[in-house]
Amino acid sequence: MRILVVGASGTIGRAVVAALSAGNEIVAASRQGAGIRVDIADPARIQAMYRSTGKLDAVVCTAGQAKFAPLDKLTDADFRFCLDNKLMGQVNLVRFGMEHLADGGSFTLTTGVLARTPMPGSAAISLVNAGIEGFVRAAALEAPRRIRVNAVSPPWVTETLLALMMDPSQGLPAAVVAQSYVQSVMGAATGVTLEPSA
Amino acid sequence: MRILVVGASGTIGRAVVAALSAGNEIVAASRQGAGIRVDIADPARIQAMYRSTGKLDAVVCTAGQAKFAPLDKLTDADFRFCLDNKLMGQVNLVRFGMEHLADGGSFTLTTGVLARTPMPGSAAISLVNAGIEGFVRAAALEAPRRIRVNAVSPPWVTETLLALMMDPSQGLPAAVVAQSYVQSVMGAATGVTLEPSA
Repeated sequence: MRILVVGASGTIGRAVVAALSAGNEIVAASRQGAGIRVDIADPARIQAMYRSTGKLDAVVCTAGQAKFAPLDKLTDADFRFCLDNKLMGQVNLVRFGMEHLADGGSFTLTTGVLARTPMPGSAAISLVNAGIEGFVRAAALEAPRRIRVNAVSPPWVTETLLALMMDPSQGLPAAVVAQSYVQSVMGAATGVTLEPSA
Repeated sequence: MRILVVGASGTIGRAVVAALSAGNEIVAASRQGAGIRVDIADPARIQAMYRSTGKLDAVVCTAGQAKFAPLDKLTDADFRFCLDNKLMGQVNLVRFGMEHLADGGSFTLTTGVLARTPMPGSAAISLVNAGIEGFVRAAALEAPRRIRVNAVSPPWVTETLLALMMDPSQGLPAAVVAQSYVQSVMGAATGVTLEPSA
Protein backbone atom coordinates (compact mmCIF):
# COMPACT_ATOMS: atom_id res chain seq x y z
CA MET A 1 0.00 0.00 0.00
CA ARG A 2 0.97 3.61 -0.59
CA ILE A 3 0.28 5.40 2.70
CA LEU A 4 0.48 9.13 3.38
CA VAL A 5 1.35 9.86 7.02
CA VAL A 6 0.73 13.50 7.93
CA GLY A 7 2.58 14.36 11.12
CA ALA A 8 5.23 11.77 10.35
CA SER A 9 7.90 13.48 12.44
CA GLY A 10 5.92 13.60 15.68
CA THR A 11 6.06 11.14 18.55
CA ILE A 12 3.08 9.08 17.42
CA GLY A 13 3.78 9.74 13.72
CA ARG A 14 7.25 8.21 13.89
CA ALA A 15 5.83 5.12 15.60
CA VAL A 16 3.09 4.83 12.97
CA VAL A 17 5.66 5.09 10.16
CA ALA A 18 7.76 2.37 11.83
CA ALA A 19 4.75 0.12 12.31
CA LEU A 20 3.53 0.50 8.71
CA SER A 21 6.90 0.51 6.91
CA ALA A 22 7.21 -3.21 6.23
CA GLY A 23 5.62 -4.01 2.89
CA ASN A 24 4.19 -0.52 2.35
CA GLU A 25 5.40 2.66 0.71
CA ILE A 26 5.24 5.53 3.19
CA VAL A 27 4.79 9.10 1.93
CA ALA A 28 5.80 11.29 4.87
CA ALA A 29 4.44 14.78 5.44
CA SER A 30 4.92 17.11 8.36
CA ARG A 31 4.90 20.74 9.39
CA GLN A 32 8.58 21.02 10.19
CA GLY A 33 10.22 17.62 9.81
CA ALA A 34 11.07 15.30 6.96
CA GLY A 35 8.99 14.75 3.84
CA ILE A 36 6.39 16.99 2.26
CA ARG A 37 5.99 20.26 4.17
CA VAL A 38 2.35 20.85 5.09
CA ASP A 39 0.55 22.97 7.64
CA ILE A 40 -2.90 21.36 7.88
CA ALA A 41 -4.38 24.65 9.12
CA ASP A 42 -3.89 25.97 5.58
CA PRO A 43 -6.39 24.40 3.12
CA ALA A 44 -4.32 25.52 0.12
CA ARG A 45 -1.27 23.68 1.48
CA ILE A 46 -3.32 20.50 1.92
CA GLN A 47 -4.47 20.68 -1.68
CA ALA A 48 -0.90 21.35 -2.86
CA MET A 49 0.28 18.32 -0.87
CA TYR A 50 -2.29 16.04 -2.52
CA ARG A 51 -1.30 17.29 -5.97
CA SER A 52 2.27 16.14 -5.21
CA THR A 53 1.48 12.74 -3.67
CA GLY A 54 -0.33 11.03 -6.54
CA LYS A 55 -2.72 8.16 -5.86
CA LEU A 56 -2.84 6.85 -2.28
CA ASP A 57 -4.25 3.76 -0.57
CA ALA A 58 -4.44 5.30 2.88
CA VAL A 59 -4.08 8.64 4.63
CA VAL A 60 -3.11 8.70 8.31
CA CYS A 61 -3.03 11.98 10.24
CA THR A 62 -1.21 12.22 13.55
CA ALA A 63 -0.83 16.01 13.22
CA GLY A 64 -3.04 18.73 14.60
CA GLN A 65 -2.58 21.32 17.30
CA ALA A 66 -5.04 22.55 19.91
CA LYS A 67 -4.52 24.73 22.95
CA PHE A 68 -4.58 23.52 26.53
CA ALA A 69 -5.49 26.42 28.85
CA PRO A 70 -8.10 27.35 31.47
CA LEU A 71 -11.46 28.14 29.88
CA ASP A 72 -11.43 31.71 31.16
CA LYS A 73 -7.99 32.25 29.60
CA LEU A 74 -8.82 30.84 26.15
CA THR A 75 -9.26 33.75 23.74
CA ASP A 76 -11.33 34.00 20.56
CA ALA A 77 -8.04 33.56 18.68
CA ASP A 78 -7.19 30.42 20.69
CA PHE A 79 -10.50 28.80 19.75
CA ARG A 80 -10.02 29.85 16.12
CA PHE A 81 -6.53 28.30 16.14
CA CYS A 82 -7.90 25.00 17.49
CA LEU A 83 -10.77 24.90 14.99
CA ASP A 84 -8.54 25.74 12.02
CA ASN A 85 -5.81 23.33 13.05
CA LYS A 86 -6.67 19.98 14.64
CA LEU A 87 -10.38 20.15 13.73
CA MET A 88 -10.77 21.58 10.20
CA GLY A 89 -7.21 20.57 9.29
CA GLN A 90 -8.17 16.93 9.66
CA VAL A 91 -11.65 17.40 8.18
CA ASN A 92 -10.02 19.00 5.14
CA LEU A 93 -7.56 16.11 4.79
CA VAL A 94 -10.64 13.93 4.25
CA ARG A 95 -12.58 16.40 2.07
CA PHE A 96 -9.70 17.22 -0.25
CA GLY A 97 -8.13 13.75 -0.14
CA MET A 98 -11.16 11.72 -1.17
CA GLU A 99 -10.44 11.98 -4.91
CA HIS A 100 -6.81 10.98 -4.42
CA LEU A 101 -7.67 7.78 -2.56
CA ALA A 102 -7.90 4.42 -4.32
CA ASP A 103 -11.06 2.32 -4.09
CA GLY A 104 -11.26 0.68 -0.68
CA GLY A 105 -8.76 3.14 0.80
CA SER A 106 -8.95 4.70 4.24
CA PHE A 107 -8.54 7.84 6.28
CA THR A 108 -7.40 7.59 9.90
CA LEU A 109 -7.58 10.79 11.94
CA THR A 110 -6.45 11.53 15.49
CA THR A 111 -8.69 12.52 18.36
CA GLY A 112 -7.66 11.86 21.98
CA VAL A 113 -8.69 10.75 25.42
CA LEU A 114 -9.78 14.29 26.40
CA ALA A 115 -12.78 13.96 24.05
CA ARG A 116 -14.52 11.73 26.55
CA THR A 117 -12.44 12.19 29.72
CA PRO A 118 -11.85 15.92 30.02
CA MET A 119 -9.73 17.68 32.63
CA PRO A 120 -9.52 21.31 33.71
CA GLY A 121 -7.85 23.18 30.84
CA SER A 122 -9.09 20.87 28.10
CA ALA A 123 -12.26 22.71 27.00
CA ALA A 124 -10.99 23.60 23.51
CA ILE A 125 -9.22 20.27 23.02
CA SER A 126 -12.22 18.27 24.25
CA LEU A 127 -14.44 20.23 21.83
CA VAL A 128 -12.10 19.56 18.90
CA ASN A 129 -11.56 15.89 19.70
CA ALA A 130 -15.26 15.18 20.18
CA GLY A 131 -15.99 17.06 16.95
CA ILE A 132 -13.54 14.84 15.05
CA GLU A 133 -15.25 11.73 16.42
CA GLY A 134 -18.66 13.04 15.33
CA PHE A 135 -17.31 13.91 11.89
CA VAL A 136 -15.75 10.47 11.41
CA ARG A 137 -18.99 8.69 12.33
CA ALA A 138 -20.88 10.78 9.75
CA ALA A 139 -18.28 10.98 6.96
CA ALA A 140 -17.94 7.19 6.93
CA LEU A 141 -21.58 6.93 5.81
CA GLU A 142 -20.91 9.04 2.72
CA ALA A 143 -17.45 7.95 1.63
CA PRO A 144 -17.69 6.49 -1.90
CA ARG A 145 -15.92 3.47 -3.40
CA ARG A 146 -15.69 1.49 -0.11
CA ILE A 147 -13.41 4.18 1.34
CA ARG A 148 -13.31 3.98 5.16
CA VAL A 149 -12.99 6.82 7.69
CA ASN A 150 -11.86 6.22 11.29
CA ALA A 151 -10.17 7.98 14.15
CA VAL A 152 -7.71 6.81 16.80
CA SER A 153 -8.04 8.23 20.30
CA PRO A 154 -4.59 8.05 21.91
CA PRO A 155 -4.33 8.13 25.67
CA TRP A 156 -1.37 9.90 27.23
CA VAL A 157 1.76 8.62 25.48
CA THR A 158 4.70 7.45 27.61
CA GLU A 159 7.28 9.33 25.52
CA THR A 160 5.25 12.56 25.75
CA LEU A 161 4.88 12.26 29.52
CA LEU A 162 8.63 11.71 29.86
CA ALA A 163 9.33 14.74 27.66
CA LEU A 164 7.04 16.80 29.91
CA MET A 165 8.79 15.35 32.98
CA MET A 166 5.52 13.84 34.16
CA ASP A 167 4.88 10.38 35.63
CA PRO A 168 5.05 8.02 32.64
CA SER A 169 3.35 5.12 34.44
CA GLN A 170 -0.13 6.21 33.24
CA GLY A 171 1.03 6.38 29.61
CA LEU A 172 1.02 3.94 26.74
CA PRO A 173 4.18 3.63 24.59
CA ALA A 174 3.87 5.23 21.13
CA ALA A 175 4.58 1.84 19.55
CA VAL A 176 1.49 0.41 21.25
CA VAL A 177 -0.65 3.41 20.23
CA ALA A 178 0.59 2.96 16.65
CA GLN A 179 -1.01 -0.48 16.50
CA SER A 180 -4.46 1.13 16.49
CA TYR A 181 -3.51 3.12 13.40
CA VAL A 182 -2.32 -0.11 11.76
CA GLN A 183 -5.64 -1.72 12.69
CA SER A 184 -7.56 1.16 11.09
CA VAL A 185 -5.48 1.05 7.89
CA MET A 186 -5.37 -2.72 7.49
CA GLY A 187 -8.74 -3.69 8.97
CA ALA A 188 -12.33 -3.34 7.82
CA ALA A 189 -13.74 -0.95 10.42
CA THR A 190 -15.26 2.36 9.38
CA GLY A 191 -16.91 5.23 11.24
CA VAL A 192 -15.31 4.24 14.51
CA THR A 193 -12.88 5.70 17.02
CA LEU A 194 -10.27 3.14 18.04
CA GLU A 195 -8.94 3.35 21.59
CA PRO A 196 -5.43 1.93 22.03
CA SER A 197 -4.91 -0.23 25.10
CA ALA A 198 -1.99 -2.08 26.59
CA MET B 1 -35.37 32.27 38.72
CA ARG B 2 -34.39 34.73 36.01
CA ILE B 3 -33.82 32.63 32.88
CA LEU B 4 -32.46 33.81 29.53
CA VAL B 5 -33.78 31.69 26.64
CA VAL B 6 -31.81 32.27 23.43
CA GLY B 7 -33.80 31.00 20.46
CA ALA B 8 -37.06 31.68 22.28
CA SER B 9 -39.08 32.02 19.08
CA GLY B 10 -38.12 28.63 17.63
CA THR B 11 -40.09 25.38 17.85
CA ILE B 12 -38.17 24.03 20.85
CA GLY B 13 -37.56 27.51 22.28
CA ARG B 14 -41.28 28.30 22.54
CA ALA B 15 -41.89 24.98 24.30
CA VAL B 16 -39.01 25.68 26.70
CA VAL B 17 -40.40 29.14 27.50
CA ALA B 18 -43.85 27.62 28.12
CA ALA B 19 -42.41 24.89 30.36
CA LEU B 20 -40.30 27.32 32.43
CA SER B 21 -42.74 30.25 32.64
CA ALA B 22 -44.54 29.31 35.84
CA GLY B 23 -42.70 30.83 38.79
CA ASN B 24 -39.77 32.12 36.74
CA GLU B 25 -38.95 35.33 34.91
CA ILE B 26 -38.12 34.57 31.28
CA VAL B 27 -35.81 36.88 29.34
CA ALA B 28 -36.39 36.00 25.68
CA ALA B 29 -33.79 36.45 22.95
CA SER B 30 -33.86 35.40 19.33
CA ARG B 31 -32.47 36.18 15.93
CA GLN B 32 -35.69 37.35 14.32
CA GLY B 33 -38.56 36.92 16.80
CA ALA B 34 -39.63 38.51 20.05
CA GLY B 35 -37.32 39.77 22.80
CA ILE B 36 -33.68 40.77 22.59
CA ARG B 37 -32.32 40.51 19.06
CA VAL B 38 -29.17 38.41 18.94
CA ASP B 39 -27.30 36.49 16.27
CA ILE B 40 -25.13 34.05 18.23
CA ALA B 41 -22.69 33.83 15.32
CA ASP B 42 -21.61 37.38 16.21
CA PRO B 43 -19.58 37.50 19.46
CA ALA B 44 -20.11 41.26 19.82
CA ARG B 45 -23.89 40.80 19.72
CA ILE B 46 -23.68 38.14 22.44
CA GLN B 47 -21.73 40.51 24.65
CA ALA B 48 -24.20 43.34 23.93
CA MET B 49 -27.07 41.00 24.87
CA TYR B 50 -25.49 40.14 28.22
CA ARG B 51 -24.93 43.83 29.00
CA SER B 52 -28.69 44.33 28.57
CA THR B 53 -29.94 41.31 30.52
CA GLY B 54 -28.47 42.00 33.96
CA LYS B 55 -27.89 39.13 36.39
CA LEU B 56 -29.26 35.72 35.37
CA ASP B 57 -29.87 32.42 37.16
CA ALA B 58 -29.85 30.32 34.02
CA VAL B 59 -29.09 30.55 30.31
CA VAL B 60 -30.80 28.16 27.89
CA CYS B 61 -29.86 28.11 24.23
CA THR B 62 -32.12 26.46 21.67
CA ALA B 63 -30.65 28.52 18.81
CA GLY B 64 -27.86 27.62 16.45
CA GLN B 65 -27.76 26.84 12.77
CA ALA B 66 -25.73 24.23 10.92
CA LYS B 67 -25.94 23.03 7.35
CA PHE B 68 -27.33 19.69 6.24
CA ALA B 69 -25.81 18.70 2.87
CA PRO B 70 -23.80 15.89 1.28
CA LEU B 71 -20.17 15.94 2.40
CA ASP B 72 -18.89 16.50 -1.13
CA LYS B 73 -21.21 19.51 -1.50
CA LEU B 74 -20.28 21.21 1.80
CA THR B 75 -17.99 24.15 1.03
CA ASP B 76 -15.31 25.80 3.16
CA ALA B 77 -17.88 28.56 3.78
CA ASP B 78 -20.52 26.03 4.87
CA PHE B 79 -18.18 24.56 7.49
CA ARG B 80 -17.21 28.06 8.65
CA PHE B 81 -20.91 28.96 8.98
CA CYS B 82 -21.58 25.86 11.12
CA LEU B 83 -18.54 26.47 13.33
CA ASP B 84 -19.35 30.16 13.83
CA ASN B 85 -23.03 29.56 14.44
CA LYS B 86 -24.21 26.46 16.36
CA LEU B 87 -20.72 25.58 17.67
CA MET B 88 -18.87 28.77 18.68
CA GLY B 89 -22.15 30.66 19.10
CA GLN B 90 -23.07 28.36 21.97
CA VAL B 91 -19.50 28.14 23.31
CA ASN B 92 -19.43 31.95 23.42
CA LEU B 93 -22.76 32.08 25.27
CA VAL B 94 -20.96 30.16 28.03
CA ARG B 95 -17.66 32.06 27.83
CA PHE B 96 -19.18 35.53 27.82
CA GLY B 97 -22.12 34.66 30.07
CA MET B 98 -20.20 33.22 33.01
CA GLU B 99 -19.76 36.57 34.78
CA HIS B 100 -23.46 37.39 34.37
CA LEU B 101 -24.63 34.17 36.02
CA ALA B 102 -25.53 33.99 39.71
CA ASP B 103 -23.84 31.45 41.99
CA GLY B 104 -25.25 27.99 41.35
CA GLY B 105 -26.64 29.05 37.97
CA SER B 106 -26.61 26.95 34.82
CA PHE B 107 -26.04 26.91 31.09
CA THR B 108 -28.03 24.50 28.92
CA LEU B 109 -26.92 24.20 25.29
CA THR B 110 -28.45 22.27 22.40
CA THR B 111 -26.78 19.44 20.54
CA GLY B 112 -28.85 16.80 18.72
CA VAL B 113 -29.33 13.17 17.84
CA LEU B 114 -27.03 13.44 14.80
CA ALA B 115 -24.04 13.76 17.14
CA ARG B 116 -24.20 10.06 17.88
CA THR B 117 -26.53 8.74 15.19
CA PRO B 118 -25.42 10.39 11.95
CA MET B 119 -27.07 10.07 8.55
CA PRO B 120 -25.86 10.90 5.04
CA GLY B 121 -25.75 14.70 4.82
CA SER B 122 -25.06 15.27 8.52
CA ALA B 123 -21.24 15.48 8.49
CA ALA B 124 -21.05 19.15 9.50
CA ILE B 125 -23.96 18.91 11.94
CA SER B 126 -22.60 15.73 13.53
CA LEU B 127 -19.21 17.44 13.94
CA VAL B 128 -20.79 20.50 15.57
CA ASN B 129 -23.12 18.55 17.84
CA ALA B 130 -20.40 16.19 19.03
CA GLY B 131 -18.13 19.18 19.60
CA ILE B 132 -20.76 20.82 21.82
CA GLU B 133 -21.04 17.63 23.88
CA GLY B 134 -17.27 17.50 24.32
CA PHE B 135 -17.16 21.17 25.30
CA VAL B 136 -19.95 20.77 27.86
CA ARG B 137 -18.20 17.82 29.53
CA ALA B 138 -15.00 19.87 29.86
CA ALA B 139 -16.44 23.31 30.65
CA ALA B 140 -18.46 21.86 33.54
CA LEU B 141 -15.17 20.96 35.27
CA GLU B 142 -14.02 24.58 35.26
CA ALA B 143 -17.22 26.53 35.88
CA PRO B 144 -16.79 28.54 39.10
CA ARG B 145 -19.29 29.22 41.90
CA ARG B 146 -21.24 25.93 41.49
CA ILE B 147 -22.31 26.96 38.00
CA ARG B 148 -23.42 23.96 35.94
CA VAL B 149 -23.03 23.35 32.18
CA ASN B 150 -25.17 20.81 30.31
CA ALA B 151 -26.55 20.09 26.85
CA VAL B 152 -29.82 18.63 25.64
CA SER B 153 -29.75 16.37 22.59
CA PRO B 154 -33.20 16.60 20.97
CA PRO B 155 -34.32 13.82 18.67
CA TRP B 156 -36.44 14.72 15.65
CA VAL B 157 -39.26 16.95 16.89
CA THR B 158 -42.84 16.12 15.84
CA GLU B 159 -43.68 19.72 14.94
CA THR B 160 -40.54 20.03 12.80
CA LEU B 161 -41.27 16.79 10.95
CA LEU B 162 -44.83 17.97 10.25
CA ALA B 163 -43.51 21.32 8.97
CA LEU B 164 -41.16 19.42 6.64
CA MET B 165 -44.09 17.17 5.58
CA MET B 166 -42.24 14.13 6.90
CA ASP B 167 -43.63 11.21 8.89
CA PRO B 168 -44.12 12.61 12.42
CA SER B 169 -44.42 9.19 14.06
CA GLN B 170 -40.66 9.01 14.77
CA GLY B 171 -40.67 12.43 16.43
CA LEU B 172 -41.05 13.61 20.00
CA PRO B 173 -43.36 16.60 20.69
CA ALA B 174 -41.52 19.82 21.52
CA ALA B 175 -43.28 19.93 24.89
CA VAL B 176 -41.70 16.57 25.79
CA VAL B 177 -38.26 17.71 24.56
CA ALA B 178 -38.63 20.86 26.68
CA GLN B 179 -38.79 18.77 29.84
CA SER B 180 -35.09 17.90 29.43
CA TYR B 181 -34.25 21.61 29.43
CA VAL B 182 -36.33 22.02 32.60
CA GLN B 183 -34.45 19.09 34.13
CA SER B 184 -31.10 20.71 33.28
CA VAL B 185 -32.14 24.11 34.70
CA MET B 186 -33.86 22.84 37.85
CA GLY B 187 -31.77 19.74 38.59
CA ALA B 188 -28.26 19.14 39.86
CA ALA B 189 -26.61 17.52 36.84
CA THR B 190 -23.55 19.07 35.24
CA GLY B 191 -21.30 18.12 32.35
CA VAL B 192 -23.92 15.86 30.82
CA THR B 193 -25.96 15.63 27.65
CA LEU B 194 -29.60 14.92 28.42
CA GLU B 195 -31.53 12.85 25.89
CA PRO B 196 -35.28 13.50 25.86
CA SER B 197 -37.48 10.39 25.65
CA ALA B 198 -41.21 9.77 25.50
